[in-house]
Amino acid sequence: MFEYEIKLLKEWIEKDNSFFDIASYELRNKETTAEIILKNFNIVLSGIEIIEKLLKEYEIKAEFYFKDGDFVENGIIGKLRGNAYNILIVERTMLNILSLMSAVATKTYTLISKIDGKTRLAATRKIFPGLGNLEKMAVLHGGGDSHRWNLSESIMIKDNHIKLYGGVENAINVVKKYKSFTKKIEIEVENETNAFLAAKNNVDIIMLDNFDSKNAKKLAKKLKREYPKIIIEVSGGINENNYLEYVDDNIDIISMGKLTTEVKYIDFSLEIEN
Amino acid sequence: MFEYEIKLLKEWIEKDNSFFDIASYELRNKETTAEIILKNFNIVLSGIEIIEKLLKEYEIKAEFYFKDGDFVENGIIGKLRGNAYNILIVERTMLNILSLMSAVATKTYTLISKIDGKTRLAATRKIFPGLGNLEKMAVLHGGGDSHRWNLSESIMIKDNHIKLYGGVENAINVVKKYKSFTKKIEIEVENETNAFLAAKNNVDIIMLDNFDSKNAKKLAKKLKREYPKIIIEVSGGINENNYLEYVDDNIDIISMGKLTTEVKYIDFSLEIEN
Amino acid sequence: MFEYEIKLLKEWIEKDNSFFDIASYELRNKETTAEIILKNFNIVLSGIEIIEKLLKEYEIKAEFYFKDGDFVENGIIGKLRGNAYNILIVERTMLNILSLMSAVATKTYTLISKIDGKTRLAATRKIFPGLGNLEKMAVLHGGGDSHRWNLSESIMIKDNHIKLYGGVENAINVVKKYKSFTKKIEIEVENETNAFLAAKNNVDIIMLDNFDSKNAKKLAKKLKREYPKIIIEVSGGINENNYLEYVDDNIDIISMGKLTTEVKYIDFSLEIEN
Amino acid sequence: MFEYEIKLLKEWIEKDNSFFDIASYELRNKETTAEIILKNFNIVLSGIEIIEKLLKEYEIKAEFYFKDGDFVENGIIGKLRGNAYNILIVERTMLNILSLMSAVATKTYTLISKIDGKTRLAATRKIFPGLGNLEKMAVLHGGGDSHRWNLSESIMIKDNHIKLYGGVENAINVVKKYKSFTKKIEIEVENETNAFLAAKNNVDIIMLDNFDSKNAKKLAKKLKREYPKIIIEVSGGINENNYLEYVDDNIDIISMGKLTTEVKYIDFSLEIEN
Amino acid sequence: MFEYEIKLLKEWIEKDNSFFDIASYELRNKETTAEIILKNFNIVLSGIEIIEKLLKEYEIKAEFYFKDGDFVENGIIGKLRGNAYNILIVERTMLNILSLMSAVATKTYTLISKIDGKTRLAATRKIFPGLGNLEKMAVLHGGGDSHRWNLSESIMIKDNHIKLYGGVENAINVVKKYKSFTKKIEIEVENETNAFLAAKNNVDIIMLDNFDSKNAKKLAKKLKREYPKIIIEVSGGINENNYLEYVDDNIDIISMGKLTTEVKYIDFSLEIEN
Amino acid sequence: MFEYEIKLLKEWIEKDNSFFDIASYELRNKETTAEIILKNFNIVLSGIEIIEKLLKEYEIKAEFYFKDGDFVENGIIGKLRGNAYNILIVERTMLNILSLMSAVATKTYTLISKIDGKTRLAATRKIFPGLGNLEKMAVLHGGGDSHRWNLSESIMIKDNHIKLYGGVENAINVVKKYKSFTKKIEIEVENETNAFLAAKNNVDIIMLDNFDSKNAKKLAKKLKREYPKIIIEVSGGINENNYLEYVDDNIDIISMGKLTTEVKYIDFSLEIEN
Repeated sequence: MFEYEIKLLKEWIEKDNSFFDIASYELRNKETTAEIILKNFNIVLSGIEIIEKLLKEYEIKAEFYFKDGDFVENGIIGKLRGNAYNILIVERTMLNILSLMSAVATKTYTLISKIDGKTRLAATRKIFPGLGNLEKMAVLHGGGDSHRWNLSESIMIKDNHIKLYGGVENAINVVKKYKSFTKKIEIEVENETNAFLAAKNNVDIIMLDNFDSKNAKKLAKKLKREYPKIIIEVSGGINENNYLEYVDDNIDIISMGKLTTEVKYIDFSLEIEN
Repeated sequence: MFEYEIKLLKEWIEKDNSFFDIASYELRNKETTAEIILKNFNIVLSGIEIIEKLLKEYEIKAEFYFKDGDFVENGIIGKLRGNAYNILIVERTMLNILSLMSAVATKTYTLISKIDGKTRLAATRKIFPGLGNLEKMAVLHGGGDSHRWNLSESIMIKDNHIKLYGGVENAINVVKKYKSFTKKIEIEVENETNAFLAAKNNVDIIMLDNFDSKNAKKLAKKLKREYPKIIIEVSGGINENNYLEYVDDNIDIISMGKLTTEVKYIDFSLEIEN
Repeated sequence: MFEYEIKLLKEWIEKDNSFFDIASYELRNKETTAEIILKNFNIVLSGIEIIEKLLKEYEIKAEFYFKDGDFVENGIIGKLRGNAYNILIVERTMLNILSLMSAVATKTYTLISKIDGKTRLAATRKIFPGLGNLEKMAVLHGGGDSHRWNLSESIMIKDNHIKLYGGVENAINVVKKYKSFTKKIEIEVENETNAFLAAKNNVDIIMLDNFDSKNAKKLAKKLKREYPKIIIEVSGGINENNYLEYVDDNIDIISMGKLTTEVKYIDFSLEIEN
Repeated sequence: MFEYEIKLLKEWIEKDNSFFDIASYELRNKETTAEIILKNFNIVLSGIEIIEKLLKEYEIKAEFYFKDGDFVENGIIGKLRGNAYNILIVERTMLNILSLMSAVATKTYTLISKIDGKTRLAATRKIFPGLGNLEKMAVLHGGGDSHRWNLSESIMIKDNHIKLYGGVENAINVVKKYKSFTKKIEIEVENETNAFLAAKNNVDIIMLDNFDSKNAKKLAKKLKREYPKIIIEVSGGINENNYLEYVDDNIDIISMGKLTTEVKYIDFSLEIEN
Repeated sequence: MFEYEIKLLKEWIEKDNSFFDIASYELRNKETTAEIILKNFNIVLSGIEIIEKLLKEYEIKAEFYFKDGDFVENGIIGKLRGNAYNILIVERTMLNILSLMSAVATKTYTLISKIDGKTRLAATRKIFPGLGNLEKMAVLHGGGDSHRWNLSESIMIKDNHIKLYGGVENAINVVKKYKSFTKKIEIEVENETNAFLAAKNNVDIIMLDNFDSKNAKKLAKKLKREYPKIIIEVSGGINENNYLEYVDDNIDIISMGKLTTEVKYIDFSLEIEN
Repeated sequence: MFEYEIKLLKEWIEKDNSFFDIASYELRNKETTAEIILKNFNIVLSGIEIIEKLLKEYEIKAEFYFKDGDFVENGIIGKLRGNAYNILIVERTMLNILSLMSAVATKTYTLISKIDGKTRLAATRKIFPGLGNLEKMAVLHGGGDSHRWNLSESIMIKDNHIKLYGGVENAINVVKKYKSFTKKIEIEVENETNAFLAAKNNVDIIMLDNFDSKNAKKLAKKLKREYPKIIIEVSGGINENNYLEYVDDNIDIISMGKLTTEVKYIDFSLEIEN
């Protein structure tokens, strides 16, 4: 798993070091050890499994004292042993991945811990290009829902589709032609009429787009009364300050783009041991 | 230029859409137009040149009303015409790139506009993996300095190198063996002794790492008095709140990791026209 | 869409022609036209959309008189114009794809046309390696269900999973940890006890593996009575001769590996025009 | 050898499993063993060497009790030990390859065993796209002749070439300009005149295309009398039912497309051990 | 044809220009024209066909006044029009290819022009890694024989094979197991005994390795007397000064590694027009 | 380091051996040892580090008795142990790399050993396409200067840039817009006026193009008097016969294209041991 991501990370490291890092070249036959140190406090760690695979590619032995999803206070999180040149070459990319994934996991965890109820928090497709799978995995580590991983995986009918197909009903019918029984259909709606039209046409998930919390909860209640099996998701304009207003028995999912785009890099450093 | 980035973006779009997007499939022979709309206010735009190349790959015709580096207030920034399926497939990756690059350019521009003096603001190697070149280009669009683009491009002797080579002087001498006359040597130092040792050994750039602003300015002054041609850079622990303290006649460069890792996605949307 | 498949087809053509085809080399600046001719009778055509994309890559202009899914009796199905060298180089791979996809579509169509009822016919993951997406698309062209396109797309708990997780209930619980609300869970069972255990644990699809038709129908009936929303699939040991025995109001899906592995190449030829 | 094929198989497995197989994910740190079982009877095994290379890539240890080309009655053919996640991920692609290659080898072997004489049976370029080298290797395992592996390898002048170059003689002369002394020239002819014209112009191999068996044998005899060193191949419209009619002292090669396109997948399964 | 080479050339250009060429960046929207000028005198041109394909990839229009294989005295050989940035980026790789291929073609032509007789001059597998196909094509342009293009194309039994298989006869028998009727067998021998043993075992080509010219001609005569159809090649230690000694009625091929490794770059330059 | 080059070498070996080497196939399970033998005399060895990485990819154990940059008289330079098939497959590419790199290193070393003074000898961008990094590394092994490794690494304003930008001053100003403080600017000039104009505009390196040695030395002296820190390089029309005329206290660098394009392959062979 994550073969593609490992391939990308190696590609970036190779590109970063396209001929050779002159500052490190003389160390190419030297063995050394190094520590990875967490410099921030109280985070949810994410990226360890990926980093372990990456380090293996460079024949660097790694021992980590924590695993993905662990809550870590501070200090040394792992130790590396291997070729000094390789360690220095991998350093920055490895730290960047840990910093990003732990930032996403920590933010997810923190927001979820304040939710009182069964409503779940989910990621969206607003990600850093190429890093989406890593970020969605970090969302899982923080306790969130990954949402669909790509466009082919599940079927989402969005506002632009409805426009192009000429209405909700048409859109759903067209899509069913290519849909396997193994897939769900989700539809994004902006008003009550379309929501009920979609429900009547047997979609599996309805996403209420850009509703304020009061209207979202009111419509979710009406939909669930008539279609109790339907999954209700809210999205659009939801952030750290207002997401709790959407927590409700009739709302299954709150999805939030800022979970994966507006984060503070967790600070890790690599220290070569003497 | 940016062939690699375009290749990556295409790869991600292909991966995102690995078999086919069922919701969009029936639109594969339909021509349409769409607008790209900026929903935030007063930003420095970045990503247009990249996006134009990307759209060309999908045979989507694009007309943009602004170019990279332009200050934009709000509203429609460009118009697309092409295959509806392709436009929907490219949409998210395109918007994510614009959102990220404009965020970096805007932050860079905003910070620089408050600097009174000749000190320049530069990026570092703390980037989103794989997106470094795009982010550094956005730094240029915002008026900043890209710093080195990769490890091979220029020579940077860091604390771990000094440790592994056994001191500043040794490190510099080793590195000179592989160095072409076309390259500069930069060294990262944590105290005055090493700074002067480095200067004496003819490095081109000295980076004062983790100095508070008072000590940085004091040491920069002493170094410049003796070695007026040396370039002085400060880095480490510098952020939006304290960077202005480092602006000084003797400090040439302030480099700041948060320029490229702690940004707020600028909000763009794509709207299919009726 | 099918970017990956087009890339593969080009790669194979390049590999097939790894330096240059000496027999065709002198034709590299010659323009010519050619016809693609169907030599078998009464088939469901499949592969046109793919072939059109492929030919475009080689700057060969193509006009086809039919589209995917069309029932074709015999004769000329399209005309090419382009560089003679390119046409000869592409010829064999193009014909092989048309022959395979049309064979799968025709078989699917023929089998489905005899089904009287709402039971659908679906493909499985028994495919020709690398050609799975093309074959599943051909199944769609023949009127069948593609089933899941890959392992990540939906969740299928198979006998080996049940063994490794120690039972049906455990397996379902483990899997739910990583499952997004956008996905369905399918489980493969070999007896009634496990089927009911799975249904009780809220799976979406139950696949009855290697049941004879009598037992399959009996169990499907019992399951549907208690869990009317559950989807029932049968698979294993089903072929052209016995599949009709499984058609039943309580069986939603018959999946059959031989749909995509045991087919007769439809015979197409390419004729250069004088 | 077969580096390209292994690369493809890995690519397909990666694509099949593009993020991660949720059903298997929790098994990613579990070691297990499994058996590969042949469920059909009396086959010629093919694919072992390829599969061994593939399993090695996933760090799965494999012990096989048979080798390519062996005649196997039924039952366990090998045992795997390795990471459970990896075994499950590789399973389907591995079985598909074994099923296909053994099917081709078995068919080849069966047909050849009925030939009484020195005429050999050969594959053609009608293959499953991308799987040609594997299928041709399976033909070798079954005792057949692979024919040329690609377009560049040897020189084959076909009907379309003759048309485009304006006749047999012209075609042969043009081709000789680019031909190395290390290569043979083969030509496809549809009548006696062209066959003799080709022989007179020193081709190495003459392929009689679409001749019925009586005419093929008659012409072969006449050609061999005058040009005893020439190799005679027959092709076109030859199948399991009529190929034996072409067996003859003057016919060296019978080539048959159905050897590699019309086969019945041999049934193998993978069983995890408790 | 040469898709792989074009892919490589583009890859190298991309790598050469990995972020962007700062010196040329401002020219990225400027159209310009340029001339390619031959600065040496009296050469055989080679590389035009390749370069045309390469330029097309960069959307540079090219008009050449000569074609591959032409004898050119001096001066302007072609004209380019396109994006100035692209032209500058492609410049060096394009000139390097022209310089190398024309050097090989010119050397081949010059040496062949002195041969009086039917003996042909051929390349070997001593090439510049990755450039072998281009160099062998240049050998064709100069009038030589490309020899086999790769290891798979024809069968060459070398001294190390004979050692490992335990003798000439064994080696030939083993190899025949995997050999198609479409291929020739060549064997490298170092003495008369092995040469006759090989001939008796029906090889197609015998390569006399490291024979002085007198012995080579003597042995060739004896071999041809008994086996008139066998092709005789000489190789090893042959250079510009002694190759003419090997020209002989019984020697078909002289192959020479220095044809492709010891050449003088032909001097071409690119001049932007005002 | 040199990941790209290793990837290329493997790709070439794979391509060279695209299906399988029939002559070696039966040896695919045989272990053997072999020696690499230097057949020329008194060379500077180069390519060992690269070859070691390459052999590791093929699981061939290697022991070398010398390292890159060593002066070697003659005879055995290393020993291999591994799979016989793999050794035979790697053989030619490995020897070609050693032959080329040692040729470049030896030429560089020989020319430098005659220089009396501090002037250094440097490579240029006239290389064998795709082999540039290997050749430049060989130049380092021979004691030379690699010059810039690619277009992005440092900034070189050439005659075509000056033409396109409309003069030296303009060109320098444009380029400064995109230049980081970590980079140097080099400019190529053809006369004294431009040289002084460039120096006045703070370039770091001036390259005197196509000056005869007398004029180069005269101008270098004048420039250094006024701008003592400026680096002076000469290039163009310099070869083995005239380069010593340019050695001078005021000339820092002589760069010579023929260092990397006009070399004599050093002769190595591989001998399987009995």
